[in-house]
Amino acid sequence: MATLKDIAKKTGVSITAVSLILNGRECRLSENTKKLVTDTARQMNYRPNRLALGLITKKTNTIGLIIPDISNMFFGELAKGVEDEAQMRGYNVIFCNTNDNAQKDSEYVNVLTDRGVDGIIISVSSHGTDGDRKKLVTALKEKNMPVVMVDRQYDGINSISVLLNYKLGAYLAMKHLIELGHKKIGCITGPLSIISAKERFEGYKDILKEAGIKYDNSIVYEGDYHTESGFSGAEKLIKRGVTAVFACNDMMAYGVYKYLKQSRLKIPDDISVVGFDDIQFSELLDVPLTTVHQPVYKMGREACLRLIESLNGNVVNNSITFEPALIIRQSTGQNRK
Amino acid sequence: MATLKDIAKKTGVSITAVSLILNGRECRLSENTKKLVTDTARQMNYRPNRLALGLITKKTNTIGLIIPDISNMFFGELAKGVEDEAQMRGYNVIFCNTNDNAQKDSEYVNVLTDRGVDGIIISVSSHGTDGDRKKLVTALKEKNMPVVMVDRQYDGINSISVLLNYKLGAYLAMKHLIELGHKKIGCITGPLSIISAKERFEGYKDILKEAGIKYDNSIVYEGDYHTESGFSGAEKLIKRGVTAVFACNDMMAYGVYKYLKQSRLKIPDDISVVGFDDIQFSELLDVPLTTVHQPVYKMGREACLRLIESLNGNVVNNSITFEPALIIRQSTGQNRK
Repeated sequence: MATLKDIAKKTGVSITAVSLILNGRECRLSENTKKLVTDTARQMNYRPNRLALGLITKKTNTIGLIIPDISNMFFGELAKGVEDEAQMRGYNVIFCNTNDNAQKDSEYVNVLTDRGVDGIIISVSSHGTDGDRKKLVTALKEKNMPVVMVDRQYDGINSISVLLNYKLGAYLAMKHLIELGHKKIGCITGPLSIISAKERFEGYKDILKEAGIKYDNSIVYEGDYHTESGFSGAEKLIKRGVTAVFACNDMMAYGVYKYLKQSRLKIPDDISVVGFDDIQFSELLDVPLTTVHQPVYKMGREACLRLIESLNGNVVNNSITFEPALIIRQSTGQNRK
Repeated sequence: MATLKDIAKKTGVSITAVSLILNGRECRLSENTKKLVTDTARQMNYRPNRLALGLITKKTNTIGLIIPDISNMFFGELAKGVEDEAQMRGYNVIFCNTNDNAQKDSEYVNVLTDRGVDGIIISVSSHGTDGDRKKLVTALKEKNMPVVMVDRQYDGINSISVLLNYKLGAYLAMKHLIELGHKKIGCITGPLSIISAKERFEGYKDILKEAGIKYDNSIVYEGDYHTESGFSGAEKLIKRGVTAVFACNDMMAYGVYKYLKQSRLKIPDDISVVGFDDIQFSELLDVPLTTVHQPVYKMGREACLRLIESLNGNVVNNSITFEPALIIRQSTGQNRK
């Protein structure tokens, strides 16, 4: 295993500077040099001596990650990003899955705090009530636990948030459908109590307005980001005569596919479908899914980086918003009706 | 939230007996009554008062779960099973993802032990060397940590194992292909250092022998259970003229699909494909995948149940082996060559 000395030798940077850079401390070197050092450390499979670090800092060098749904590959990719960054910086990650049970958000904050993590990265459950959210805010405040929120943003918690420009994502998806001549476009939203779903829905409405298409509440279905709700949503929307469906995440788009397959409707000849997330399976589907790409792995790394920086006492900007991109595959086509 | 009293009232069983049953203690009631009580508790969303329990038992009521690959849905389903059972019994689960890095197996055992879990469920990385395995055994022994192994079995650890009859699974898959007239059947194995892969490969060889087909080492490819190795394996096997591929897990079968799509070969007209695992996406694929179903959710529940029973001092059988079933979908067809 490589030591600080090995990395110093390879890069020509002093051992002290290498140590500062890899521990995320302040130092006067250029961004290029910092990048060279971290890249080299990664290539050489460098891992800090955590025992020695712990003696100095009294930290456990363990980060807690709370996710709402382990069976949604979006969170699998996110977790990978968090872990890779953590590993690079000598932290371990332990995580908890709330299974979208909002009571478990605050419960797992307590569990992780009791188990002595240094900080928490959390993507809150989508099903919570105001009471659940209040309980979570209280748990985080009581423990004075450094926290980074991913894909979510809460009033009342002084946390760092890692977000996507969801509105723009929805806008891109919808613009594509409208350009293909679709006018009656159904929308299966996520749970509207959380920001990632609310803003996608806002984006949907914004572009309808811009395109001069009247908003029709009867072709909107509030889902919950799970495949089953995509299926139920499709059932309702297809009956109302939509020619295209905008599913606000890929898991729900898979539900739409299931329904269409069962009803012997062809994608995109009969119905166009757009998703949101671009998870691993979307290109392997029946008809490869046109969807909005989120750089979720990068978002995971950034969340972890920001948490560790703040654990090291560095001032970190409160929020960062990533940009989405539309990936056009084969599930969208010209409106033929 | 339901109390022990509520459940006693509803089932007509005494409060003491309900408490014994839900805490997994010995009691003289029939299996039917026990099932009635646990089912009722689940329906009524009963959750034990962990604080009170902790005062008596001095336990943290936290279980650690170590999995090798969070992006393989097989482990997502497994985790769900573990968590549902844990929740029922008033335990929390924290987990770690080794990303198939065998050094992390022992490292995470240490992390979880340091964080005070009561016991560990582990599915060991597939890439380990003998040295890695030795280190893991040492870590587990040193900490005297109760452990349940899933999908893996090790000499030298006195652990409970939850396994599948892998050999039978492979046998069923291969028998199906042979009955369709295939003789030149390629095999993409998992990493042969672990039992789940080794036994599937044994099953492959066994039935060839039984069917009087000569084993041909040149149409066997050792993969690592990841999609990419399925792709590389397919590339090699197709060039050698196989008419069917047995991919030893679904993730690798997805890699085979990718390669065939890229090469414009049709499933099953040109090549038949069988997978192993039956994960959620397999029925949504391009051509729904014929595969061997593992009751992985149940296996997760059973692993958790056995760990908790042994934490409660109950004697538990060392191993349990589940039975697989072949699910015939559309990726397999008659050999036309």
